[in-house]
Amino acid sequence: MNYFSSNFKLGILGGGQLGKMLLYNTRKFDIYTCVLEASEAAPCRIACDEFHLGDLLDYDAVYNFGKHVDVLTIEIENVNIEALADLEKEGVKVYPSSKTLRTIQNKAKQKLFYVDHNLPTAPFSRFAYLSEIKEAINHGGLKLPFVWKVAQFGYDGQGVKIVKSIEDLEGLPKGECIAEELVPFKNELAVIVARSAAGEVKSYPVVEMEFHPEANQVEYVICPARIPEAVAKKAQEVALKTSEAYNHVGLLAVEMFQTQNDEILINEVAPRPHNSGHQTIEASYTSQFEQHIRAILGLPLGKTDSKVGGVMVNLVGAEGYTGDVVYENIAEIMKMAGVTPHIYGKKQTRPFRKMGHVTIVNEDLNEARKIAEQVKGLIKVIST
Amino acid sequence: MNYFSSNFKLGILGGGQLGKMLLYNTRKFDIYTCVLEASEAAPCRIACDEFHLGDLLDYDAVYNFGKHVDVLTIEIENVNIEALADLEKEGVKVYPSSKTLRTIQNKAKQKLFYVDHNLPTAPFSRFAYLSEIKEAINHGGLKLPFVWKVAQFGYDGQGVKIVKSIEDLEGLPKGECIAEELVPFKNELAVIVARSAAGEVKSYPVVEMEFHPEANQVEYVICPARIPEAVAKKAQEVALKTSEAYNHVGLLAVEMFQTQNDEILINEVAPRPHNSGHQTIEASYTSQFEQHIRAILGLPLGKTDSKVGGVMVNLVGAEGYTGDVVYENIAEIMKMAGVTPHIYGKKQTRPFRKMGHVTIVNEDLNEARKIAEQVKGLIKVIST
Repeated sequence: MNYFSSNFKLGILGGGQLGKMLLYNTRKFDIYTCVLEASEAAPCRIACDEFHLGDLLDYDAVYNFGKHVDVLTIEIENVNIEALADLEKEGVKVYPSSKTLRTIQNKAKQKLFYVDHNLPTAPFSRFAYLSEIKEAINHGGLKLPFVWKVAQFGYDGQGVKIVKSIEDLEGLPKGECIAEELVPFKNELAVIVARSAAGEVKSYPVVEMEFHPEANQVEYVICPARIPEAVAKKAQEVALKTSEAYNHVGLLAVEMFQTQNDEILINEVAPRPHNSGHQTIEASYTSQFEQHIRAILGLPLGKTDSKVGGVMVNLVGAEGYTGDVVYENIAEIMKMAGVTPHIYGKKQTRPFRKMGHVTIVNEDLNEARKIAEQVKGLIKVIST
Repeated sequence: MNYFSSNFKLGILGGGQLGKMLLYNTRKFDIYTCVLEASEAAPCRIACDEFHLGDLLDYDAVYNFGKHVDVLTIEIENVNIEALADLEKEGVKVYPSSKTLRTIQNKAKQKLFYVDHNLPTAPFSRFAYLSEIKEAINHGGLKLPFVWKVAQFGYDGQGVKIVKSIEDLEGLPKGECIAEELVPFKNELAVIVARSAAGEVKSYPVVEMEFHPEANQVEYVICPARIPEAVAKKAQEVALKTSEAYNHVGLLAVEMFQTQNDEILINEVAPRPHNSGHQTIEASYTSQFEQHIRAILGLPLGKTDSKVGGVMVNLVGAEGYTGDVVYENIAEIMKMAGVTPHIYGKKQTRPFRKMGHVTIVNEDLNEARKIAEQVKGLIKVIST
């Protein structure tokens, strides 16, 4: 098939910021793109050839959109899977597959998948209802503390809670969940694996998610991770095996824990471009977005090496500010060498809302990390 | 002024490929953009917030469009200058200025500007009509060979001819022109200088335009140029002086000759992102497009150093093919490390039409140059 002509149509489910960054790269290859999204004000609207308004969880909306394109991908996992399964049967190429999405959408299923495939992950128990967790604690079948995770539709730290006493369960959603052993870890790592429709596989360097010591929020993504080579090798191996187990096509971001004993445990995966890969735009030979497109179209994969060291800082709404957004000191940070802000264009800020990210690149990674700290100290996402 | 809000509007005159690459970078900063362009099928249409249909040479079209924006820039020089001059009087920020564009639009005026400002350029004579050139030759006032250049509206080698005999003048446009001394040169070089509205100045490394030995067409842009440091320094100095002489805001691409005696002579300038800077997207800390936006908005300029060596190859329509375009072997070149094709999305090819470009980056510039030759040998822009 000739992707470089207007007869071919690429469909994207979801019209958010990830989709927008994906679309910039389709433009580079002149690929005709269609986006399905429920919000008329979606960031993608400005960058696609066709914008279709529709609910991503509605069977008909997804099915009809899918029939209209040749290859279908996602920028968000919460989409109607039955429609994807039917589209696959009817010959539409769907990457990631409905099967993979069905497993990933549910954290209990995802964890069971790792166990079934002999992939390392923290021990856990599955519960159909929150009430069963309480019973298990009361009967001594579950020891405190543990990590509670909602099975379905958790996102970005929401739907996750460290439970130290039975009272911590108050107010949590009552449905399906898991209780995961609280593993003390040295580092949270991630590897993005690209696997193409033609079977080619390449992975990006291991990155490190550096957490704020108090806020328990990812502050910096650092590429490459400052870890021993043997640990990096193990993380790469686990990530590659995970991609293979899913028989995945496209990008798979594999988030992992490096335990105190330098074991690698899979935390969770995202079958698409991911926050832990934003620094690839400036730091890598091939950005994660270009790579995803290469992979799902069966084109040769690009080189995943870094040109320079990269650090990514998320721009989130400051606490105490809700309303029309203002980026304080943005010109100040643009004075610093190798600093690129990416402003997502959301008009309204609220505490912790993801409003953009800043990439800092430097030949010397430690220097980039230092500049990142200055960036973090200067820029503030506030309201008018 | 807060550029990072929707109250601000950036206007671009011209809706071609340069404009499109500029627009991708405005998206990164979430800048609201308006484009004026005569063709409904313009590449920019998909990437701007507002698309205005209108003739760039029409006073009213340009004036009315300009009144609608806060900062106005161009992606092509041939625009109505009277409208720009009036807009400037009325407070619209126009970069490049009407004065600079008036000088640059006319090659005779441009050459006189260099003479007036004591900037090095090849000796030349100015003629109001082609017929005057013939008279000058006949009277011995002009020696053969020389380079004939049309004064107005030449583009990309069109409007330029080496005249070795009086017969070579046959069929040339009859209007204003110059006759320039044919200077034997070792290299054709270029430097892109960025000068911001706030007065900050930064320049990119000197690049080398390598010509095809027979076809006399730029085959490769090589960054940095493989020239002695002293020559590079001289080229940088001339380029910076030129930008200063124009009191220029935005990018100024200064094309120069390195003569057999290592003199530097200005050939011509382009007051905008330029073909000789396309490799900055992949090779530099800051792409020329991002830099142009930073400059005209008075934001701090980005670092102009290279992360890696870069070579750019233009993709032009192959001889003997006209019609619906096909890119032969594009997947083959995408297999090579550090190779990124940029397909401009023009549906029809014809001999020598610019259809895209390919960037090759590598830590080792000589390796990049080698891969570029393989790219050039493989990819063909043909028709169905």
